[in-house]
Amino acid sequence: MSITITAFERSPDGGKGLARDTRVRWALEEVGQPYDVRYLSFQAMKEPAHLRLHPFGQIPTYEDGDLVLFETGGIVFHIAEQHAGLLPKDAHARARAIAWMFAALNSVEPGLLELVIAKFHEGDKPWSGERTPLIVDRIRQRLGQLSTRLGDAEWLDGAFSAGDLMMVSVLLRTRASGILEEFPNLAAYVARGEARPAYQRAFAAQLAANAGKPPAH
Amino acid sequence: MSITITAFERSPDGGKGLARDTRVRWALEEVGQPYDVRYLSFQAMKEPAHLRLHPFGQIPTYEDGDLVLFETGGIVFHIAEQHAGLLPKDAHARARAIAWMFAALNSVEPGLLELVIAKFHEGDKPWSGERTPLIVDRIRQRLGQLSTRLGDAEWLDGAFSAGDLMMVSVLLRTRASGILEEFPNLAAYVARGEARPAYQRAFAAQLAANAGKPPAH
Repeated sequence: MSITITAFERSPDGGKGLARDTRVRWALEEVGQPYDVRYLSFQAMKEPAHLRLHPFGQIPTYEDGDLVLFETGGIVFHIAEQHAGLLPKDAHARARAIAWMFAALNSVEPGLLELVIAKFHEGDKPWSGERTPLIVDRIRQRLGQLSTRLGDAEWLDGAFSAGDLMMVSVLLRTRASGILEEFPNLAAYVARGEARPAYQRAFAAQLAANAGKPPAH
Repeated sequence: MSITITAFERSPDGGKGLARDTRVRWALEEVGQPYDVRYLSFQAMKEPAHLRLHPFGQIPTYEDGDLVLFETGGIVFHIAEQHAGLLPKDAHARARAIAWMFAALNSVEPGLLELVIAKFHEGDKPWSGERTPLIVDRIRQRLGQLSTRLGDAEWLDGAFSAGDLMMVSVLLRTRASGILEEFPNLAAYVARGEARPAYQRAFAAQLAANAGKPPAH
């Protein structure tokens, strides 16, 4: 069997690691699985061949023999379930790690994405300037709760898990805004994630793919 | 072992079934597990005793002996993994069903929640009227993609699964806006979910808990 994922031919972030293929690359690096990448243009992502793999016309997808998966959370979970290294063996700790994956994607990321949507889809609207601080306040509230829960722990619940991989990946979205730095323990948590050799390899691979290419927008 | 979940003492929706405990009740009903409910006021949800269970001060939580879980997706997944009835036995079909759970929560629900946030947090802002159609357009685009993928199938991928439970629950949020009815196959899909006896029992239970109580806001 060999694993093939899809990624942007040119990532909208120009290689900052925010495209979701980085999360899948990171998971594969943590468990030591090699993978191939098929790069797609924005146009190719909307064509029938790709829509058969991904109903929303996005990246990443994951192919391994007969198995086709889309949706980053589902892909990372599958990798974590197939290979040791991303989920605790203890049943309760495992359930909590999986819950943190969902928490990252449903309770933290949507609020952070509001800022992205406001910039890219409504940046030219008259309300843009006045609305941004409201979004930032909502993000600040959620990150404050997360910061309180993390406290001075190294990871969210015992050893590093797929829950941390997903939470760190989601929090990386806040770096450009400066909000992350308001919560030193979260900033340090993200830095610990980035310092992992598996993340370093994943980041380098996506950066190399974008090297010399201008951001698509 | 006995399962205890938490729910709103008075749901903000007055019992329309949109509070997230309904999703957990539904999952427990599908697999035939009895459960107790501890009802919480808005004030109690923000107190230390509950924040120890749920870092974001929300409902639902799930307690079963020593195991404490928060985050609806994680709870429903745990129920689905512990008991037969919500995940296919075939390994590939199982991975796809789990991916649909993540898709519901990370690729569909955030867009729908934009409408809720716009109403409750920014309903009094001068941009409210002009912004709503932009949000609706984004929702329409995503539901169109989902509608195309579903086609004339009964469920998203073979037999009913936790992926459908989550997607139907998420799509129920769009009913009040009328957008769901623009996609007859999605409306029929949601109706099939609501017609399941397990959903009916879950809905009735949360409604009974809210009976005679005015919506909290």
